Amino acid sequence: MPQRNPLAVLRPGKMSSNWITSAETPEDCRSNPLFLCVLSNTDTCRIPNISAAGATTELNDYTPAGDAEIVVYGSTRSVLELPMKRDGAPTPAVMTRAALQLTGIPYLFVNSGLQIVPDVPAIDLGAPPGRDIRYGDAVPYTGTIYERATQIGMQLGKLSDFITIGESIPGGTTTALGILTALGYDYGVSSSYINNPLDIKHAVVRQGIDASGLTTGKARADPLHAIAAIGDPMMPAVAGLVRGMTSSDMSIVLAGGTQMIAVFTILTHLGIDTSRISIATTKYVSQDSSIDFDAVIRDLGCPIHVVDPGFAGSHIAGLRKYEAGEVKEGVGAGGAMYAAGLLGVTQGEMLGAVEAVYEALMSG
Amino acid sequence: MPQRNPLAVLRPGKMSSNWITSAETPEDCRSNPLFLCVLSNTDTCRIPNISAAGATTELNDYTPAGDAEIVVYGSTRSVLELPMKRDGAPTPAVMTRAALQLTGIPYLFVNSGLQIVPDVPAIDLGAPPGRDIRYGDAVPYTGTIYERATQIGMQLGKLSDFITIGESIPGGTTTALGILTALGYDYGVSSSYINNPLDIKHAVVRQGIDASGLTTGKARADPLHAIAAIGDPMMPAVAGLVRGMTSSDMSIVLAGGTQMIAVFTILTHLGIDTSRISIATTKYVSQDSSIDFDAVIRDLGCPIHVVDPGFAGSHIAGLRKYEAGEVKEGVGAGGAMYAAGLLGVTQGEMLGAVEAVYEALMSG
Repeated sequence: MPQRNPLAVLRPGKMSSNWITSAETPEDCRSNPLFLCVLSNTDTCRIPNISAAGATTELNDYTPAGDAEIVVYGSTRSVLELPMKRDGAPTPAVMTRAALQLTGIPYLFVNSGLQIVPDVPAIDLGAPPGRDIRYGDAVPYTGTIYERATQIGMQLGKLSDFITIGESIPGGTTTALGILTALGYDYGVSSSYINNPLDIKHAVVRQGIDASGLTTGKARADPLHAIAAIGDPMMPAVAGLVRGMTSSDMSIVLAGGTQMIAVFTILTHLGIDTSRISIATTKYVSQDSSIDFDAVIRDLGCPIHVVDPGFAGSHIAGLRKYEAGEVKEGVGAGGAMYAAGLLGVTQGEMLGAVEAVYEALMSG
Repeated sequence: MPQRNPLAVLRPGKMSSNWITSAETPEDCRSNPLFLCVLSNTDTCRIPNISAAGATTELNDYTPAGDAEIVVYGSTRSVLELPMKRDGAPTPAVMTRAALQLTGIPYLFVNSGLQIVPDVPAIDLGAPPGRDIRYGDAVPYTGTIYERATQIGMQLGKLSDFITIGESIPGGTTTALGILTALGYDYGVSSSYINNPLDIKHAVVRQGIDASGLTTGKARADPLHAIAAIGDPMMPAVAGLVRGMTSSDMSIVLAGGTQMIAVFTILTHLGIDTSRISIATTKYVSQDSSIDFDAVIRDLGCPIHVVDPGFAGSHIAGLRKYEAGEVKEGVGAGGAMYAAGLLGVTQGEMLGAVEAVYEALMSG
């Protein structure tokens, strides 16, 4: 049941298909696509009830590794539990796998601070996992991560003219709220829970900002310092990758919701050219009342592509839970499906492929 | 002083330039090149007097990390000593850096069993360092390395139609002799020393083969098992990368001397299509009397490109030592320069760039 998104009304633009709402379509950039997924951990996800991105709070650390294995193999290998709640909506990795399978788009994983390393090869930035942001000293070696990611971005930017970058980091919406708050933006924040634990998140962020002594002025003047205080290791990785992709005729799609909005604001304050960047996410993020998407669109000046994988019409109860607001986005799912849509995949094909991936995963 | 190589006489072919002797030139594959360098360690290099690929035998473990840092930064970072003998010929990393700088070819490093990790991001195959081949159990997780490298090769093969793969692994000519002997080939073996310590190498290999119980039949029937017994972690990495690059219209250049000849024979016995593969190396390997290059060319049925960087005419004594047979090759130097030649770089430009890299390195 594709549903026309308010974005198309807010920003005049064209629809690349009936399941993707886009303000602008980089139609000349489909020749040589690449999908990247940055995998990170932050101890912030161990704060009780802050993230639903794992079977239990204790197992959240395994989620990025499990997600990577599901994208590559269709099942987990080094992780016994699936990265999802029992009887809950499946990890968005099922959408990412389905989109990459349908299109054959090449993909690479980037390890930027994993606690648990998957049985999948990855570009290693040598980053330690992120720390609990409540203590205001969250990301060791932020500058090194940023520089190393820049190096990789420089190389990959020569190989592809259309690069989509997703992430998997449990607790990432809280660290995104941290950096957005530090930089002085009040868009709200999305969640992998239906009922967003906003009180906990705001208290955590407040505690971290107080501990770090960050002010909006300091954070805007030195966004890497702000990440080091109250961010996560995914942020300097994605920012560096984008910084390294210097070719002016390429398109970069940041694939995610709140977390990629946070990265976009970081890039802006780092003075990096954002004219080549758009954001792609699922309609479940865009419909989340916890985040002021209108304000995001107004402020960022960045094309946002919203993807509806048609789960309302699925025969699988777990997928229909996305429609109720569970999980919503992650593992670059929105961006991977956006790229699939650009390459001509229909909503029906996408839904069928996601259902097949889900059924194989649950029977494994 | 370009010197016509006997290869051009042995195999009818064309010269792509006056400093590169090629049997066949993949002229239609220059649109989207990529350079890969696999970095590995094997404890085999700790056997006294077996490898000159480091300042001292004790420092050989640092050589791949130092090489990678020289390629990226022009100097070492995490390693205090340069990966070369004092007053000796410089590491071939200076050629690789010069060629990549001149051409802008994108590059990625692959960590397949590093003891020391460089201050450079790399694709991590999660491999442990190789063990001393004398004990016949040299490469743990050979199959896993091979599978993970295959995954990476599948992705990179979609991004580039011309992939050059080099290596840096001290002790690698000894492990190459190990696998060649196990597979029943008697080409001899090159060396980073002027005076190749062949007696030591043959004794080491004999001991390893005896310890492992390998026969030629067993090794040919199961080349991965032979690598596990008497090879090194670079081999399953390069073999897997090639295996994953399934596109029939791409060119793969194995950049190196004896070690890539060993990989080529492994690929042959693995039943992998080698029709897209050529080998590029320096003239210092091709002129090494310790290796029967004529037999290699006759047996392998693989185009070999031989590169002369013109060091005979250099004002730098360290570079002229290559002409005397010191170091000879490594870090994919021959292949990187071959790609540069295909892209129109002249021998004079190459020599000048290598001299500049060398002078910056030594003054740093």
